[in-house]
Amino acid sequence: MQIESIGAIHSPFKAIADMPIQPSGAKGQLGRIELEPKLAAGLTDLEGFSHIIVLYYFHCAGKTALTVTPFLDPEPHGVFATRAPTRPNHIGLSVLKLNAIDGNILQVENIDILDGTPLLDLKPYVPEFDQPNEDIRTGWIRKNPAGVQTARSDQRFA
Amino acid sequence: MQIESIGAIHSPFKAIADMPIQPSGAKGQLGRIELEPKLAAGLTDLEGFSHIIVLYYFHCAGKTALTVTPFLDPEPHGVFATRAPTRPNHIGLSVLKLNAIDGNILQVENIDILDGTPLLDLKPYVPEFDQPNEDIRTGWIRKNPAGVQTARSDQRFA
Repeated sequence: MQIESIGAIHSPFKAIADMPIQPSGAKGQLGRIELEPKLAAGLTDLEGFSHIIVLYYFHCAGKTALTVTPFLDPEPHGVFATRAPTRPNHIGLSVLKLNAIDGNILQVENIDILDGTPLLDLKPYVPEFDQPNEDIRTGWIRKNPAGVQTARSDQRFA
Repeated sequence: MQIESIGAIHSPFKAIADMPIQPSGAKGQLGRIELEPKLAAGLTDLEGFSHIIVLYYFHCAGKTALTVTPFLDPEPHGVFATRAPTRPNHIGLSVLKLNAIDGNILQVENIDILDGTPLLDLKPYVPEFDQPNEDIRTGWIRKNPAGVQTARSDQRFA
């Protein structure tokens, strides 16, 4: 299994504390994804999509923890029931708005990702693929789903 | 950067040809995810979520190709504008229905994943995190988004 960084993500967020914790808490925040130039041909026709799924490596997650207390709840939960970075594979996922592509550079919006984060993959966001059409339950998050819009990070996962 | 398999995904699909190409083409298909037993504590409280984001390794993607002709269109596109497995990092993503958890075993539905696929991560699916609330455009896929429900795979990405 060979997985490597394929670029770098740039954002206004230079430290892991006081960041938005999801794109819905980062409305209008602009960022830039620099794909390795040799891979730029892979972006052909991506500009037709308004949103992209960005997979990246939580390079500042200092550890793995199977039980975490997330930013949105004072109670601990299993790490797979959260989006915390201290999961066994430190892979993050954000659905970002795609504003423009110029060569190997993508201009994105609603970015909730730390500056300098290594990029793993880009996928087009497609509601017919990515939105379940069954009833959705959201476990512990349903206590306060709107909290994600204002919650900010701290150092707990460093 | 250290990324490793954390379990195995089991499904009715034993070969890469003639498979559904997305969960929306795999309605009712049942599967099983076996997380490594030592990580089972990380599943605590995940059963409150009806759907999970499953990240996995396309272990049968035999190559990387920056330009691909996807199953849903006769025209070639950049691989990052598709969900084809022959992307630089062979990481796949499916949003599956979660029916039950017993210890380290997850029973899932709508599975579009090859039997024996290595698991990379599990995340709770949360509309407030994962569904953009802006207008969505879907590029070349908008020609035939419903095609995903009946399209089946072939050997082209082996």
